Amino acid sequence: MNNRRRRIYEGKAKVLYEGPEPGTLIQHFKDDATAFNAQKHERFEGKGVLNNRISEYIFSRLNEIGVPTHFIRRLNMREQLIREVEIIPLEVVVRNVVAGSLGTRLGLEEGMQLPRSIIEFYYKADKLNDPMVTEEHITAFGWAAPQEIDEMMALALRINDFLSGLFLGIGIRLVDFKVEFGRIYDPDGQVRIVLADEISPDCCRLWDIETKDRLDKDRFRRDMGGLLEAYSEVARRLGILVDNPAPKPSGPVLVQSK
Amino acid sequence: MNNRRRRIYEGKAKVLYEGPEPGTLIQHFKDDATAFNAQKHERFEGKGVLNNRISEYIFSRLNEIGVPTHFIRRLNMREQLIREVEIIPLEVVVRNVVAGSLGTRLGLEEGMQLPRSIIEFYYKADKLNDPMVTEEHITAFGWAAPQEIDEMMALALRINDFLSGLFLGIGIRLVDFKVEFGRIYDPDGQVRIVLADEISPDCCRLWDIETKDRLDKDRFRRDMGGLLEAYSEVARRLGILVDNPAPKPSGPVLVQSK
Ligand SMILES: Nc1ncnc2c1ncn2[C@@H]1O[C@H](COP(=O)(O)OP(=O)(O)O)[C@@H](O)[C@H]1O
Ligand SMILES: Nc1ncnc2c1ncn2[C@@H]1O[C@H](COP(=O)(O)OP(=O)(O)O)[C@@H](O)[C@H]1O
Ligand SMILES: [Mg+2]
Ligand SMILES: [Mg+2]
Repeated sequence: MNNRRRRIYEGKAKVLYEGPEPGTLIQHFKDDATAFNAQKHERFEGKGVLNNRISEYIFSRLNEIGVPTHFIRRLNMREQLIREVEIIPLEVVVRNVVAGSLGTRLGLEEGMQLPRSIIEFYYKADKLNDPMVTEEHITAFGWAAPQEIDEMMALALRINDFLSGLFLGIGIRLVDFKVEFGRIYDPDGQVRIVLADEISPDCCRLWDIETKDRLDKDRFRRDMGGLLEAYSEVARRLGILVDNPAPKPSGPVLVQSK
Repeated sequence: MNNRRRRIYEGKAKVLYEGPEPGTLIQHFKDDATAFNAQKHERFEGKGVLNNRISEYIFSRLNEIGVPTHFIRRLNMREQLIREVEIIPLEVVVRNVVAGSLGTRLGLEEGMQLPRSIIEFYYKADKLNDPMVTEEHITAFGWAAPQEIDEMMALALRINDFLSGLFLGIGIRLVDFKVEFGRIYDPDGQVRIVLADEISPDCCRLWDIETKDRLDKDRFRRDMGGLLEAYSEVARRLGILVDNPAPKPSGPVLVQSK
């Protein structure tokens, strides 16, 4: 929107710009969808708008229950103001039901309820295909300290509890999701771990409880079609009405009288 | 040797027979070598004899320093008497130096000394290609309890310390190794974790410190040749003389006088 803004990073689904104050950034949601480490790529017009709204909604509710996040406020249809963090180079995945790579790796049937929620860590490295790692690798290579791992796990479980409830309330089963965390260095020298990045149907598996319909990025991964409709449905059930819809040019409407 | 013995299990490198007393087994070392989940298979005549001796030596020394093992005593060239255990279905890998799958997965150069020793768990399931798993999977699926994981890790580190020293003393760098543990149910209802299976050049990476020569199964995996020579060299340096060598038929030898 504003071309004088300095672009800090362009990723697969978002762009980060310099924020209005030191320690802030602007997170811009693009319409791009990628899968299988960006081997597959497509644009879905309006996805960025939906994800910006859904992520705003979820981060705001998480802030309210005391889960610290980078979210400050939404700025416009595609952008939100966030606190700049030092990203911990891990994707933290929480799983409640078998789907995706877990089924393949451990020979489990998709849809099987797990005996308990499982947390997994993947090292953020596109070149290596985001390999799964354990606490041993994380601490040996200094990606995070043991205490930080514990904190991320505790936060991930709280997020899972909250989101499981939230989605259940709107007829959706939270199968799994991916989050990222970052460090904020407080002026007093304290380091805090906060939830960063986004939470949207791009990084969750959301199954309609009645119809078993996929309301998430698997529609794109599996060429099922209807991605935007699915994301809109999630937004609608969450009570988020996308404001500023693309203006529909219309002249005066003739109201028909009976 | 004894055909009336009941065969309990035939694996890729060993056969287990019923033992002479309840709670015991006979572990028979075959000459077969397999790699890449048995896609590659070859026989090396005499490997079983060498591994039986090397594993006997290592397990005896570990018993002496207080690492509990299944080993009771060697019976003959290819067989040892062991305590029957309930195998925990995990391969516990300890790594000191980057080699094999770790380098590939995390993009690290082979031969790089790790910042500290790393323990990894792999789920023993040939059909799934022994996938790496984390404590989360292990406890969620009940393969081992958290306390058992801690115990295996503590034992694995002790074994690593001891073997690193032992091999260093004979000019060999212990790059990594794989062990298996099992449960013994004591009459008083106590469950004890003991080291089971084997420790031999089949399940270690052993690099000659001076020449960097591989003295382990990588010779087979990488078609380098000289596998038996390498295993014999390890046995020789450990001070193990293979007794009962295959009888060399020879008539009276004429001693030449000067
Ligand atoms: N608060 C934050 N501060 C700094 N970086 C962030 C913050 N939140 C998210 N990021 C990073 O910004 C990028 C978001 O863009 P994205 O398109 O998701 O990138 P990628 O293709 O790397 O996943 C990610 O690399 C993410 O780790
Ligand atoms: N003390 C023991 N009691 C019972 N089973 C054991 C014991 N020690 C090792 N085992 C098991 O015996 C088998 C040894 O044979 P091996 O050829 O290594 O089999 P695999 O092809 O399954 O690796 C392994 O499955 C191992 O887990
Ligand atoms: Mg991302
Ligand atoms: Mg084996």
